[in-house]
Amino acid sequence: MRENEPDIKYLFEPRAVAVVGASHDPKKIGYKILDNIISGGYPGKVYPVNPRGGEILGLRGYRDVNEIEEEIDVASIVVPAPLVFDAVKRCGEKGVKFVSIITSGFSEVGNREEENRIVACARDHHMRVLGPNIFGVFSAPCSLNATFGPKNVRSGNIAIITQSGALGIAMIGKTKVENMGLSAIVSVGNKSDINETDLLEYLLHQDLTRVIMIYIEGLKAGERFVNVLQRTAKQKPVVVVKAGRSKRGAMAAASHTGALAGSDEIFDYLMKQSLALRAESLNEALEWCKFFANTPIPSKDNTVIVTNGGGIGVLATDACEKYGVGLYDDYLTLKETFSGMMPSFGSTKNPIDLTGEATPDLYEGAFKASLEGESIHAVIALYCETAVFDIRTFTPMIEAYYRKFLEAKKPIVFCLVGGQQTEDAVDDLRKHDVPVFTDPYEAVSCMGALYTYVHHRRSHSGSVISISVDTASMEAIIEKAKKEKRRFLLAHEGQGVMKAAGISIPRSHVARGLDQAVQYAEEIGYPLVMKIVSKDILHKSDVGGVALNLVNRKEVIEAYEAILHRCRTAFPDAKVDGIEVTEMVHGGTELIVGARIDPSFGPIVMCGLGGIYVEVMKDVSFRALPLSLREAITMIKEIRSYPLLLGVRGEKRKDIDGLVETILKVGEILQTCRSISDIEINPLVVDVEGVKAVDVRILLSP
Amino acid sequence: MRENEPDIKYLFEPRAVAVVGASHDPKKIGYKILDNIISGGYPGKVYPVNPRGGEILGLRGYRDVNEIEEEIDVASIVVPAPLVFDAVKRCGEKGVKFVSIITSGFSEVGNREEENRIVACARDHHMRVLGPNIFGVFSAPCSLNATFGPKNVRSGNIAIITQSGALGIAMIGKTKVENMGLSAIVSVGNKSDINETDLLEYLLHQDLTRVIMIYIEGLKAGERFVNVLQRTAKQKPVVVVKAGRSKRGAMAAASHTGALAGSDEIFDYLMKQSLALRAESLNEALEWCKFFANTPIPSKDNTVIVTNGGGIGVLATDACEKYGVGLYDDYLTLKETFSGMMPSFGSTKNPIDLTGEATPDLYEGAFKASLEGESIHAVIALYCETAVFDIRTFTPMIEAYYRKFLEAKKPIVFCLVGGQQTEDAVDDLRKHDVPVFTDPYEAVSCMGALYTYVHHRRSHSGSVISISVDTASMEAIIEKAKKEKRRFLLAHEGQGVMKAAGISIPRSHVARGLDQAVQYAEEIGYPLVMKIVSKDILHKSDVGGVALNLVNRKEVIEAYEAILHRCRTAFPDAKVDGIEVTEMVHGGTELIVGARIDPSFGPIVMCGLGGIYVEVMKDVSFRALPLSLREAITMIKEIRSYPLLLGVRGEKRKDIDGLVETILKVGEILQTCRSISDIEINPLVVDVEGVKAVDVRILLSP
Repeated sequence: MRENEPDIKYLFEPRAVAVVGASHDPKKIGYKILDNIISGGYPGKVYPVNPRGGEILGLRGYRDVNEIEEEIDVASIVVPAPLVFDAVKRCGEKGVKFVSIITSGFSEVGNREEENRIVACARDHHMRVLGPNIFGVFSAPCSLNATFGPKNVRSGNIAIITQSGALGIAMIGKTKVENMGLSAIVSVGNKSDINETDLLEYLLHQDLTRVIMIYIEGLKAGERFVNVLQRTAKQKPVVVVKAGRSKRGAMAAASHTGALAGSDEIFDYLMKQSLALRAESLNEALEWCKFFANTPIPSKDNTVIVTNGGGIGVLATDACEKYGVGLYDDYLTLKETFSGMMPSFGSTKNPIDLTGEATPDLYEGAFKASLEGESIHAVIALYCETAVFDIRTFTPMIEAYYRKFLEAKKPIVFCLVGGQQTEDAVDDLRKHDVPVFTDPYEAVSCMGALYTYVHHRRSHSGSVISISVDTASMEAIIEKAKKEKRRFLLAHEGQGVMKAAGISIPRSHVARGLDQAVQYAEEIGYPLVMKIVSKDILHKSDVGGVALNLVNRKEVIEAYEAILHRCRTAFPDAKVDGIEVTEMVHGGTELIVGARIDPSFGPIVMCGLGGIYVEVMKDVSFRALPLSLREAITMIKEIRSYPLLLGVRGEKRKDIDGLVETILKVGEILQTCRSISDIEINPLVVDVEGVKAVDVRILLSP
Repeated sequence: MRENEPDIKYLFEPRAVAVVGASHDPKKIGYKILDNIISGGYPGKVYPVNPRGGEILGLRGYRDVNEIEEEIDVASIVVPAPLVFDAVKRCGEKGVKFVSIITSGFSEVGNREEENRIVACARDHHMRVLGPNIFGVFSAPCSLNATFGPKNVRSGNIAIITQSGALGIAMIGKTKVENMGLSAIVSVGNKSDINETDLLEYLLHQDLTRVIMIYIEGLKAGERFVNVLQRTAKQKPVVVVKAGRSKRGAMAAASHTGALAGSDEIFDYLMKQSLALRAESLNEALEWCKFFANTPIPSKDNTVIVTNGGGIGVLATDACEKYGVGLYDDYLTLKETFSGMMPSFGSTKNPIDLTGEATPDLYEGAFKASLEGESIHAVIALYCETAVFDIRTFTPMIEAYYRKFLEAKKPIVFCLVGGQQTEDAVDDLRKHDVPVFTDPYEAVSCMGALYTYVHHRRSHSGSVISISVDTASMEAIIEKAKKEKRRFLLAHEGQGVMKAAGISIPRSHVARGLDQAVQYAEEIGYPLVMKIVSKDILHKSDVGGVALNLVNRKEVIEAYEAILHRCRTAFPDAKVDGIEVTEMVHGGTELIVGARIDPSFGPIVMCGLGGIYVEVMKDVSFRALPLSLREAITMIKEIRSYPLLLGVRGEKRKDIDGLVETILKVGEILQTCRSISDIEINPLVVDVEGVKAVDVRILLSP
């Protein structure tokens, strides 16, 4: 919260609201919002504002917001786009805390200038802006339905933040059908000022909200989002659906909200770092939220599958692996627990297979045993329609046991597969909030999301550690480059930055003559690399400006002459500063470590398999900065090539600690030298002895 | 079909059937099957068999199947497990063509011996066995419901083969609820004799069947399955759900059907090779089948998304990339086609965004334009509930346009998101077979499956090409190893096999003395590798039996002495055959190429990134043998490292043709030398000049 800014709480719990552009015409949004506020039972004062004044929906209409005497916390603005700026200005003059601009026709259609003008005006008045291009705000704690969506929103414990207005309105309807109650639903639209992060900061502390769903298309300040998301996700589950995963989807998103989608891969890593749960589709996200809203947190991980069909049991087992649900495998205890009720050919191994002969009694026995079994913490119950019994005798028992499992803080999900009677049972049970599905993957997906959340809560993300780097030396190097109007550092300048950060580089000197080259060569030892040093020669390898693997004095002398000759032939006018003589780093694993300011996500750091494999294998992982030690270690473990660092085929473990330190240092460089926009070390050679930054590329911000 | 075996057609279209174990007791399966056959309207003769005789369900009961005078094509056997053998024997004596053994309690519970005895007996009588452990057969062409599942199975054009009986019965009910008609549903159970492949051979030619779904847990003869599946999938879509994907799921599958699940990764590649469509979940498979059953094949790929919400349009766009649906992007034509009906702020870029102001009229305009637009071949229509219109005026138009699109052979799917009225519209439309969903991913998944199938049909898998290898030389090498009771070939024997197949290997000789070693070294050229040759020394590197990168005569002499000394110290009694002097292959990309007899899938071939990266990156692809040239090329393109072969960072293209040839040759070796169970070349070094098999490991079948 910036100074003088109003507390975000008043957006959700305003004491008085105005509707600027309130209308008599039931077809207009200015009517619908006012009508929704009144019929929703909002207990505060409501002020319709309309230039023609008069009575609107039984309330006194005001010609101008400044005519209102009381303080206004939120003004919903629904006037046409060209009139919005003026309306916002008047609200600012009145001292309104928040304007919720419903009107569209701003940056989402290219009209960014007007939007910026509106936000600047609001800022001058210490007023904050939600929208524009939104459907409004529903907030359960004060029964406020300041949206033009459906009436009679069902209150509950699920909060939804959505970047898409149309989807948001549809979700209000959909959640109601699915028996899901909302604590809040807010559309953020163009996010000209208030964004998801601001809303999260309120929802994090709002007691009514038990689970938060965010539909997002593009991020702006990823750094703060990750930070707040991380804090929120430690308190309550946050389910994120991000559209614009694909290249073309990102283009489509950019064209309709003006937001950059950013790389989906990086977003995925940031969600992991934030401990948020990422769902692929809307339905998946809603199912997870519904499950979270009603389900207790299990004490431990032992899950049992109870089934009357082997096949569906196998499918559920597969799904458990996919979604990370831990199947209980103490076969002795399982046998003790379930063998009493087992028909012949049944199995007490997990899945507990009651076979096609299973009756409701058998199921009841298995449920009871699971409920009472202290080492069983969650149950996935499956049923394939059989001719053995009528499912209608089964459903009341399912519901009764669902309640008992709730009380015992043991999550349970059901999956029923069959014909009309089975489908009817599913509909009926869902109406009673029982988590029941028609496909084992859907059932297990919910249980998996729950356990992912449980594991997140248990994990410690670790504190951000500070690494000291010699910022003054770095700034001096950067100053020089800036003076020369360069947006990149030269090789030796990059090496200078590495030294200042305490990252090892290969031993290297720039020789100004043949004798010096030979002297340096003998000092450093063989094998060696030699390279022309000249700002005027860019593709050094292509013109023969580089010689690799020089193993003795003779080769050094020959290479010196050859390099100079070739470069002078190719670039007769190039200014040559000398020839670099460098230790050749061989053996070890070539990695890439980098950091940059991402336009969507802010400062991020990456590491992965380097050298020529970077583009080919795309084996890299990302994190937002600042980074904890634990996260730095996790990101290394995430890359597929991690076993190469542990040592394959009898090799020794490589210097992973050194790698971790390098990642933290590279992050620190980006964090402290704000002139740097991009650092890439490739390759960073990691061997048993340590790490060496062989090639460094640093770009500066414009 | 083996000689004297009955045509599989008579299993699906029997002229007369018997039920051995028919019962008077409505609770018994022997009653249910007979009842289902009679009430299902089977037009042929039905013979109940029961030792007590008498009338059963109004038909004359026979004490023994041999009492029946007419010929019997299929006998359903429902007697208890201990009586099955005798029942089968009598059916054999009678000359029954097929026995369908419903009874369980055989290999699935470990009783493999009895199952084998039954199959052997059937085989003696040229009789084939379906099952045991099944629910039976439903076959629409002769209205035969010889199952103990629900009555009144709905006839149609979808055939289902299922390894799980319980799931099969549940699916009969589920397909009926979903308005899906079945041409056949057969449970294969323990697959003691008849398996999926046999059934596919019938369904391939059965005209009523338009789409086939297979639920499978484990395969036995993968070679034939891939072959028949490939032929079938060229004619009609085949959707496969394989359970036992995960390690634990595979264990569960093995314990309840006795079948080996095999590696899920390899199965995935075989499905690709077979052109089958692999669904993850049952619901996904059923949705695809329903869509295929009712949807025309589009002429080309240009798909258009029509929406009234930007967000849902972005989600659908993402889904199109995921499922391989080609979005039309001729923006000029799109503008011409749709700009007439576009509201302000709408977009004619694909997605066609009619905005929240969209009315049914606007949708109709967009549908009509898509229907008439010659360059538009498929449509994904999305709707978010709005306050603008009542969806009940929308649904009849949706249905009418769905029919028009059908006629025009343009597939269309719908996705409606919203509250109760929207859900009611979805239910209503689904009852009328309109492909409508509540999540864009589900809608696009169907369209994607359709286009995958369309692309399969268009592709030519290419004919299997024969490669000649010198089998006689290989057999001679193998004979020698067999005589020595070895199950593996020695290094030089492996090289011999490579030579016989015409696969290049590094130049190499075994030197029997120092002089010879030096002579060979000078012949081959430097750098060189030297290695001890001795059957008695296994881990040659560990004892210092290998020397790498020898660059001159002096080093060769030193290495020769050192290797001998170290090996004699470590293994004083080892018989040393000499020291191998080998060209050191450097540069190039290290790949792995192999082939083996897989216990589930039969002969398969693999290629991928080799060297130390094999286990780490797991970048390999698989195919069943025999292999077409086209498939060999495709499998190389599938590996992530493929760009390394094309040449990254200015490198030249490596010898991909040589690699293709090597893969085909390795496949040919396995196919012709049936004593070989396993070949692995790792690394196979591929460079610009050609390929070289540096290390070869060959195992023999026991």
